[in-house]
Amino acid sequence: MQHLTLGEIAQLLGAELKGEAGYPVTGLATVVKAQPHQVSFLANMKYASQLEQCAAGAVILHPDQAHLFGGNRLLLVNPYLGYARLSQAFAPADQFSGIHASAEVAASARLGDQVNLAPGVVIGAHAIIGDGVTIGANTVVGAGSSIGDHTRLGANVTLYHGVELGRSCTVHSGAVIGADGFGFAKDGDEWVKIEQLGGVIVGDFVEIGAGTSIDRGALDNTVIGHGVKLDNQVQIAHNVELGDYTAIAGCTAIAGSTKLGKHCTVAGACGITGHLTLVDGVHVTAMSLVTHSINEPGAYSSGTGLDKNQKWRRNAARFKQLDQMAKRLKQLEAELQQLKG
Amino acid sequence: MQHLTLGEIAQLLGAELKGEAGYPVTGLATVVKAQPHQVSFLANMKYASQLEQCAAGAVILHPDQAHLFGGNRLLLVNPYLGYARLSQAFAPADQFSGIHASAEVAASARLGDQVNLAPGVVIGAHAIIGDGVTIGANTVVGAGSSIGDHTRLGANVTLYHGVELGRSCTVHSGAVIGADGFGFAKDGDEWVKIEQLGGVIVGDFVEIGAGTSIDRGALDNTVIGHGVKLDNQVQIAHNVELGDYTAIAGCTAIAGSTKLGKHCTVAGACGITGHLTLVDGVHVTAMSLVTHSINEPGAYSSGTGLDKNQKWRRNAARFKQLDQMAKRLKQLEAELQQLKG
Amino acid sequence: MQHLTLGEIAQLLGAELKGEAGYPVTGLATVVKAQPHQVSFLANMKYASQLEQCAAGAVILHPDQAHLFGGNRLLLVNPYLGYARLSQAFAPADQFSGIHASAEVAASARLGDQVNLAPGVVIGAHAIIGDGVTIGANTVVGAGSSIGDHTRLGANVTLYHGVELGRSCTVHSGAVIGADGFGFAKDGDEWVKIEQLGGVIVGDFVEIGAGTSIDRGALDNTVIGHGVKLDNQVQIAHNVELGDYTAIAGCTAIAGSTKLGKHCTVAGACGITGHLTLVDGVHVTAMSLVTHSINEPGAYSSGTGLDKNQKWRRNAARFKQLDQMAKRLKQLEAELQQLKG
Repeated sequence: MQHLTLGEIAQLLGAELKGEAGYPVTGLATVVKAQPHQVSFLANMKYASQLEQCAAGAVILHPDQAHLFGGNRLLLVNPYLGYARLSQAFAPADQFSGIHASAEVAASARLGDQVNLAPGVVIGAHAIIGDGVTIGANTVVGAGSSIGDHTRLGANVTLYHGVELGRSCTVHSGAVIGADGFGFAKDGDEWVKIEQLGGVIVGDFVEIGAGTSIDRGALDNTVIGHGVKLDNQVQIAHNVELGDYTAIAGCTAIAGSTKLGKHCTVAGACGITGHLTLVDGVHVTAMSLVTHSINEPGAYSSGTGLDKNQKWRRNAARFKQLDQMAKRLKQLEAELQQLKG
Repeated sequence: MQHLTLGEIAQLLGAELKGEAGYPVTGLATVVKAQPHQVSFLANMKYASQLEQCAAGAVILHPDQAHLFGGNRLLLVNPYLGYARLSQAFAPADQFSGIHASAEVAASARLGDQVNLAPGVVIGAHAIIGDGVTIGANTVVGAGSSIGDHTRLGANVTLYHGVELGRSCTVHSGAVIGADGFGFAKDGDEWVKIEQLGGVIVGDFVEIGAGTSIDRGALDNTVIGHGVKLDNQVQIAHNVELGDYTAIAGCTAIAGSTKLGKHCTVAGACGITGHLTLVDGVHVTAMSLVTHSINEPGAYSSGTGLDKNQKWRRNAARFKQLDQMAKRLKQLEAELQQLKG
Repeated sequence: MQHLTLGEIAQLLGAELKGEAGYPVTGLATVVKAQPHQVSFLANMKYASQLEQCAAGAVILHPDQAHLFGGNRLLLVNPYLGYARLSQAFAPADQFSGIHASAEVAASARLGDQVNLAPGVVIGAHAIIGDGVTIGANTVVGAGSSIGDHTRLGANVTLYHGVELGRSCTVHSGAVIGADGFGFAKDGDEWVKIEQLGGVIVGDFVEIGAGTSIDRGALDNTVIGHGVKLDNQVQIAHNVELGDYTAIAGCTAIAGSTKLGKHCTVAGACGITGHLTLVDGVHVTAMSLVTHSINEPGAYSSGTGLDKNQKWRRNAARFKQLDQMAKRLKQLEAELQQLKG
């Protein structure tokens, strides 16, 4: 267990400490659950009233809210960011070290210094594994793939051949990078496979969630920018390009050759069809379907709101008459005009 | 192959047998396909007419429908439940036994009695594996995780560290439990990772489908109640709580910190956004998006019905004019009122 | 690296070569990126103007477009199909050969000739592996399953017991075939598991994407026809039947016992509810929900179009008043009629 004093934490976060610099803490907790050996934080004023009962050893607060807590305070303009940074100090260390005897490393693969390979890891021919890389149990790295320094792969991850992963990335279990894109040409009734000859290039500081798939390109590469964050079960088709720092929530699917700009956010369960271009700073709300390119930053949506099923059924039935309703409305307007005229 | 007599089955199900107690059967089949060595069942009156041609050795029926079949009958108030119970008697036994030589079990892990570990299983430090647990090939159990008695994990499952799985659960292949929740704080243009320090607690008699992911909590735990059933490719984000006996169909995604009550059902391909609360007994129909808390039990829906593409296009175009149409309608009503007045 | 002359390629594709038969090339590339050692193709007239600057060693073109490129040309009625066929000639060869020492093959399993088993592969009892089958690292094949000749499985694939896979199929990493269908009977508050006693039968020339799941049948089998193509993260529930040459894009979910005809296409992120029948030649557009059987071929859709969030919000609010609006419209029509009358 990690021990830190409030003085050390203040220095780590660049926070102003109001309280006891030598006070020791061992973890983080929510305002409601925090104990005297833990630090908490207030990032949302909705929870401000809970601070009265808060037993935390210290609370990270905006300077303007300093008066809301009577105990030790760590004052920061962005308490949520402070919480994020402090969480890293309390993260558990890796659970294995060195190269396990059961890992199968091809003779032609190149391993950096201080590489951790868990049991059952398989590293293909000519793969290049950077310094300080940690690879979880039963993960498979294909031939000729490369992994940048300090990147961490969970257990049961699959990297196909020819995948370039940057530095300091995190890839969670069940993720598959470099499988074939979905490409076929019709020959009469049958589908003829288009072999996917491109690769996947992933930038630095990228996080890839559990069960997420990123397909290799058909001819050119699929490209994931620096600092991109992909949640679980995201599907990235062949030749997609994601701009730096774009974040995509769970179960969203992006079809082939679509390009997203930088600093976009796509909420969960969205779909984006193929061959589109979205500029920087586009935000798509949950379960929306994007079917055309977007040239203007901002928030976009599709779908209908939730309703009680019985009421929804009536409205959904009317949706199928909508064009007819619009024509009747126009007709009425014309008739009324005539009547008035 | 399992052999049972109808007398044994009647006792197993608590059914009234009309027929030959010593008649032997070896399996279950549908009314249409059943042979004399198999049992069938009638759970839906839609298929009642098929009973005339049914060759089954016996049929499970509601007492009121006893006259519909001329052969051996097993009479039960709930034939579908009888089918479910009988299916368990005919399930194939596990395919391996004992601890395979290639399984890697940390020295500090604790294994119960009669544990089956298939080839390539990896059990981390301080993990606790209950009695009668069966773990499929190449499945990975993280450090400090625990698995209750008689729970069965498929092949290629991943449990991260600090996951508590209850008794008599089933986890299918490709499932990932305890990966990091999707949490980041913005620091200018960049995302700063919030380490996910909570765990996952799964109750007893829970089923988790193939490729389903359940993320660990940010600070507190993600909690799955007793008897919860999750289909394939379900995504459960950090700090979600699912009440007992709630069932969720394939490809549904639930965002962070949302709480579902007991006895809810969520159909396939739904989305539920974050920080919501749904009371007990909420039912969400397929591909609906839930964006607000639900305080009343019942069925809820969103979306529009399916239509021929050409017709749908016209109506969807009108959807974008809907607010305008509503205003024009109001205007017409006012003008007509004036005209009549 | 594969070397081919244009003469060899012309013969392979059945193309008419206008140019140097002995000219050697080593790969394929897009019109924009192709170098003199590569072949390109023009499948879409949108890109015709790029041919002027094209540096490719040869271009595959429709005979009518032969004049658009000055260099070596391979003339074919379907250049896209030519590209597909040629891509297969340039696909990289498999990366391992023979049966790795760490593969665990049950004594009762039967292996064909020239089988490749990568490290960590597990083959269950009585499994049958055809000639020329290649199985990627840490993939698990359950007891009694069979794999047809020349089928290729990626790394970390799971086949449960009793799965029949045809000839010349491709299964990508993380796919799970034969997990239990989602079947439970209610017993008061609790769910009683219906053991899934059927299997999965997959035809020949089928492709199954990364992370896709195909559940085993409850009593009968789940059936995937010949030449079916499934993209990544597709979910096929128990007892679904897919007709020959049907193709389904990423993240689509099909619920239990639904039957699709031949030559259907389902775009990404769709849902199809259970117990439906879709005839041959049905095409479903992206993120549509199919809730009733379809008896007529053609294109089908549901949902609404994308809009700016602010505008969408107003229209979505009106959707909830749609039935009311329709009634008001009808009322207006009646009143106007009266006024005119």
